[in-house]
This record gives sequence, C-alpha cells and structure tokens, in this order.
Amino acid sequence: MSNHPIQPQPERRRFLRFGAALGGFLTGCKTSRVEEPAEPSSLGKPLSEHGARSPFEKTGRLPGPGKNPEIGSSKTPLQDCYGILTPASLHFERHHSGVPHIDPAAHKLLLHGLVDRPLMLTMADIHRLPAVSRIHFIECSGNSRSEWGPKTAPDAQKAHGLVSCSEWTGVPLSIVLAEAGVKAGASWIVAEGADACHMQRSIPLKKALDDALLVFGQNGEAIRPEQGYPLRLLIPGWEGNTSVKWVRRIKLVDQPSMTKDETSKYTDLMADGTARQFTFEMDAKSVITFPSGGQKLAGPGFCEISGLAWSGRGRIERVEISTDGGRTWVNAALDEPRLRIAFTRFRLPWKWEGQEVILQSRCTDETGYVQPSREALLEARGANSDYHNNCITAWKISPGGGVTNV
Amino acid sequence: MSNHPIQPQPERRRFLRFGAALGGFLTGCKTSRVEEPAEPSSLGKPLSEHGARSPFEKTGRLPGPGKNPEIGSSKTPLQDCYGILTPASLHFERHHSGVPHIDPAAHKLLLHGLVDRPLMLTMADIHRLPAVSRIHFIECSGNSRSEWGPKTAPDAQKAHGLVSCSEWTGVPLSIVLAEAGVKAGASWIVAEGADACHMQRSIPLKKALDDALLVFGQNGEAIRPEQGYPLRLLIPGWEGNTSVKWVRRIKLVDQPSMTKDETSKYTDLMADGTARQFTFEMDAKSVITFPSGGQKLAGPGFCEISGLAWSGRGRIERVEISTDGGRTWVNAALDEPRLRIAFTRFRLPWKWEGQEVILQSRCTDETGYVQPSREALLEARGANSDYHNNCITAWKISPGGGVTNV
Repeated sequence: MSNHPIQPQPERRRFLRFGAALGGFLTGCKTSRVEEPAEPSSLGKPLSEHGARSPFEKTGRLPGPGKNPEIGSSKTPLQDCYGILTPASLHFERHHSGVPHIDPAAHKLLLHGLVDRPLMLTMADIHRLPAVSRIHFIECSGNSRSEWGPKTAPDAQKAHGLVSCSEWTGVPLSIVLAEAGVKAGASWIVAEGADACHMQRSIPLKKALDDALLVFGQNGEAIRPEQGYPLRLLIPGWEGNTSVKWVRRIKLVDQPSMTKDETSKYTDLMADGTARQFTFEMDAKSVITFPSGGQKLAGPGFCEISGLAWSGRGRIERVEISTDGGRTWVNAALDEPRLRIAFTRFRLPWKWEGQEVILQSRCTDETGYVQPSREALLEARGANSDYHNNCITAWKISPGGGVTNV
Repeated sequence: MSNHPIQPQPERRRFLRFGAALGGFLTGCKTSRVEEPAEPSSLGKPLSEHGARSPFEKTGRLPGPGKNPEIGSSKTPLQDCYGILTPASLHFERHHSGVPHIDPAAHKLLLHGLVDRPLMLTMADIHRLPAVSRIHFIECSGNSRSEWGPKTAPDAQKAHGLVSCSEWTGVPLSIVLAEAGVKAGASWIVAEGADACHMQRSIPLKKALDDALLVFGQNGEAIRPEQGYPLRLLIPGWEGNTSVKWVRRIKLVDQPSMTKDETSKYTDLMADGTARQFTFEMDAKSVITFPSGGQKLAGPGFCEISGLAWSGRGRIERVEISTDGGRTWVNAALDEPRLRIAFTRFRLPWKWEGQEVILQSRCTDETGYVQPSREALLEARGANSDYHNNCITAWKISPGGGVTNV
C-alpha cells in the first residue's frame, strides 16, 4: 500500500475534544460475547436496474388537508433526513393545479416580449447549452406559517417542512437572455408554468441576469415531476413560488404583471393594514431536527443536538444553541461544505440530565443578519402575516424525554 | 423588495467570455410566433407521500452478465447523470452474495479483538452517537477493467460505471474505537458484512482512526439496501470493496487476515508474475460523459464538453481536455464545490466543425498526481492486471457525429 499522508480532519479533533461528553453511555453496550452474530442463511436479492429504499423505511411527505388533492402542499420530514440533501422523493410540494404529465420531447420554452429575437426552445436546444450545478434550498414563503400562533404545529415536518435542498443542474438564464437580446426598457420578466392554472410570477430582470437557472437536473437525475419536470426556473434564495415549475414561457416586460400569486397571495399584511409586496428573499432561519417535536429521548445522557440552517442571502456563518430558554447560547459545529443559499447542518454534543429543557437555535448569515426572536418578528411585522416567518422557535424536553413545540 | 447585493458568479463571467462560442446555434430557435404555447386541459396529479421519477425517464443500471444474478455488478449510467451526485437508485452495485434483507431493529455491530471493552451496538446506539456528513465517491477497483484492452467497452456506463458519488452520513469509527479502547499491538481491523458470503476486508488501523465512517445515511435518506442498509463501513478514497456493506463485525488484530477478497481477488498481477497487494487508494481519474461512446452529436456547432473527475487522495485541481488526439490540451472549468474524494464536474465550451475528433481528458489532483496515459500505465503495471485502471481514455467523434471508444 502507498503511504500518502492524509489531511487531519477538523471534526475528528472536535470529537476527541468532546469525547468525555459521551459519558460512558456506551458502557451499556459492553459485551462479554465474542462469538459471531447470527448467520444469514441464503443469497440475498439480485442485482437490479433501479433501486428502491428499504421496506423498513416508511417516512413520507405529509400532504396538507385541502378540498382538492391537486391543490395544496406536502411537507418534507426534516426530522428524518440526514446531511444537507433532501431525497427527491421527499422534496416538499406546493401545487396550484396538480402535477402536469409532460413529454419532454414536446415541451418548449417561449422567450419573448422586450427582446430582439423571440426564441422557442426545445429541451434538446436547452440541453446543448452550457450548464452548471448548484446545491440550493427552495423554501415556500408560507413555510412555518403555523408558528405565527397562537396554536403551533407539533413537529418539525408540520411546522417547517416546506423547505428542501437539492443539487440542481441547468442553464444560466443569462445565457438564453443574451441570445435573445434584451431590449432597452426591459426591467422585469414574467415566468409562466405549464400547469393548468398557468402559475405566473414577475421577477426583476436584475435577478434573472444574475443567478437564475433553467434547471433540468435534480440530485443527479432528471428533475422530478413534482418539482417541475422537465424544466424549472430556479431563482436561488427567493420565495419558492418564484421558481416557476414546468416553465414554458418567459416574457420580458417593463413592469411587474401583478399576477394572482403576487397580489391576492404571497404578500405580507402589516399591522397598519398595508401590505408588503415582492418580499422575495428568504431570510436566515434554523430548525433543530433532533431532538424535535414528537420525538422522545431514550434517557438521560449523551445526546447530539442537530439541525438545519439556511439563508436566501448567502452562507450560514454561525448557529448558536440555547438549552436554558435563551439565557445563554453556545456555538454549534457546522458541517462542511457550507454553501451559499443551501442547507447547513449544525451539531452540538450535549448531555441531558433528565430535567425539563427549552431548546432553541439561532443562526447568523454571512451578511451579519441574525435570526430574530418571535417578539422581534411580531414587533416588526405585526400579527396579520401568513408568509415569511423565520423567527426562533423552541422545543420543550419534558422530564420523561418527550419533546413538544412551545 | 430589498436590494441586498448579490455576489458576482464566476461562472457567469465565464459564460459571457465564451458567449461568442455559442456561434448563433440558437438562431435556429428564432420564432416569429408570440402566441402562447398549447394549454394544459385539466388538473394534474395530486400531492403524494413519496415521489417517483417521470415515466419518460428510463435510464438504468446495467447488471453485468453472470452465472448468478445475485453475484456480480451493475453499472451507473454516468452519461445520463447530472452534477456530482449519483441518484441512490442508480448507484453502482457489486455484490458477492446478493442484497440481504435486514431489519434495522435486529441489526447489531460487534466490535472486538484487541480492545479493552468489546462492544455490541444496536442501530439505536449508533444513532445516538455524534455524526458527520460527507460527499464522497465510491469506486470499485475493478472499474474500467475493460480498458486494459484489447477490446474496450462501447460507452461510459459499460467502461467506467463502477463509480458513484453520494452524500454519506454516519459516525466516525474513531469515536467507537475510542469507546472500546484500542489495545497496544492492534494495527489492523477486519470488517465483515452480514451478507451470506461474510465479505471481509482487512484495513490498517491508521486509516480506520483517520476518516472511516459507519454510515447509515445516503443522499439525505437511509442508506439503500444495495449500498449496505442499515450500516456500511465507509473507507473514503480506497477501493470500494473495503467499504464493507451491511457491516456487522469489526475485529481489531495485529496483522491483515488474508481473506479471499485480498488474496485471490483485489490484487494486481504484475508483468514479472508477482502481485501487488493492499493497493487501497483509488488514483485520480477522469471520464468525459458528453460527448461519449454511443451518443451522437446533433450536428456541427456549439457543444459543451462535460465529464467527471475524482481522486482517492484529495481534491481535483485541474482537468485538461484535448480535441486533437493529445497534441494540445486546454483547461476545463471546474464546477464548485470541489470536495476531497468526491466527483468534480468539469465543462469546456467547444465548437465542433464536423471533422473527426479524438477527445480525451486528463486530471491532476491536489497531490500533483497526473492521470497517466495508457502507455505509461502499461509500462508501470504490465498487461496482466484486472484492477486499478485509471488511464486516459479516448472517444472518437466521426464526421457523422457518432461517438465511439478507441
């Protein structure tokens, strides 16, 4: 074997430092049996063309109650996910008229309006263009709506499950716009989906030219039907509704179109009765996924507190955790890579003594923005809002080990 | 809306620089039709608990020919994958006695041998320990075996598909070893799987203490059965066979065990008749996935050359591409993030003039190691080898646009 020197792993040093925190809970695992475990008796399943998860794995999205199963949302089980990626099968959904069945050979994107050369692109045309891949979260601006109160949702999925994170692959919209030629006076685009309701959103041209993508890939494979197959407009860091799924039309215009989803919906009613409009960026937010509502600690002793943080404005720089109701805070460790506009996984080794605990996380992004308290959010926004709730939330661990949302 | 400044995107500058390379191939997409595309007629599919890929997507793993469908390998369709992640359903397989059906509630890991405290750990014990997530490739050392020649495989999947890349989540083995207490004299571990053949490999203790993980998560969900559900030993950057699936036993010993898979297999027969043993590291390698064997260019004009590079020794620092049979080389752009021991996606805007082209890629990793030519590999290793073929390979584009392996 070769003896290539291997770089030290910062996490390993962290674990050795915290080694004492394990506090010997593994002593319960000591065994005097050194005989081998039971033998498997026969050959297993054969090789296959396309794999599936273990039949023992049952976690699922949670479709919300609604009059019509095509219209509404289903939530990602954040408390059952690992790392920073969301499996495509569990990526949250928010549909306004169901998931259209689209043959990619027939799908086209029309680019028109204030352009020199209107373009009608097939998927084959789009696949010939230069592409990039990016790991980004998408969050519905209605995520955590339950946390405005007074009655909050019982677990991480129900409270915060309208956010997911994937690797997206696609063509920078700027390339296609350059080919079409943007006319003087164009300042917005209007993007339209191929779903039955023609979901439309207006997006400033500056953002469209900056980092918007026409994505056809998700987590290494073709984008899933529920996320926009075969083509989705991805607007990194902005409310999920602007990342128009099944995109079939982009029109360059000189003002926003005031579509249904930017007037009657996706606006923020303030305390004085006026409404904020075009509140695009998703502010920094964090959620503890273990321990979290509905879970139960096995007993006192070592426990790794873990969760997710993200910001529509860039990287997560810090996540602090309080185990005493917000009186004191300590920094959690952040898994690498910490990517812009992506989930960051945080972890803190901790020892639960069996007492009642109020557990909170608070993140800071690279702009210096700090996730606000509930009180600060209500003071700034009032209590009329549905959207853009990113305040610090709290889980209560009871002496029996049960965890609830408080 | 807020006017938060958004960081410039290096790729956007790159695309603007190469904008002229598009050479107006989109002129064929110009349209004078500004009417809307055809309307969808009805509501689509409802919300669901667990999604699936589009029925229009058919790409699959390719199970190799074998006497027994439980024993052998299936290959990842690298030419159909996007970005740096492999969908779990398409992760390559290499089984020695099929995929065991394991109830995680019954699975245990025995840690014994030269330790102070033998441990028998349940999955619940393992889930309580501190974890990390890492994006790493796993490559079978038999990958690209066909490329030793004389008859090479026709496409990227058949030639190079025994490599895949996932986000893995698990517990550093060093933590569990610290709890067990490593006795003086221990210098190797022997890991054993719960498959019917008891697949076993010996691994130096130094590596086990450095960056080995006991992984239970893959791409955000529980590891798939074909990749080791519920628990796999991950040995980053080393031949895939050392990352023992369905791991149920780790024994600390003072010398390698000389198991079947490190004596009769997974050794490298040299020209002089001796064999190299314990050739663990997977050396740097790159493969162009577009254009690649079996594909057909639509016609002369703009074409983004794209592919994957990886190294078991760290980061990929450079990928060069030759379109003239190796006479001249130019640097490809590398997608970020470039992670240690992970796929790196490379891309080069190019214009095909319609002539015959010999297309090659050559990567360099952070240690300065350069992927060797076929001639250099044969000179160093002779022609008796099965394993560890990482040489530069070539695709030929014919004037008709067809692509073959040469």
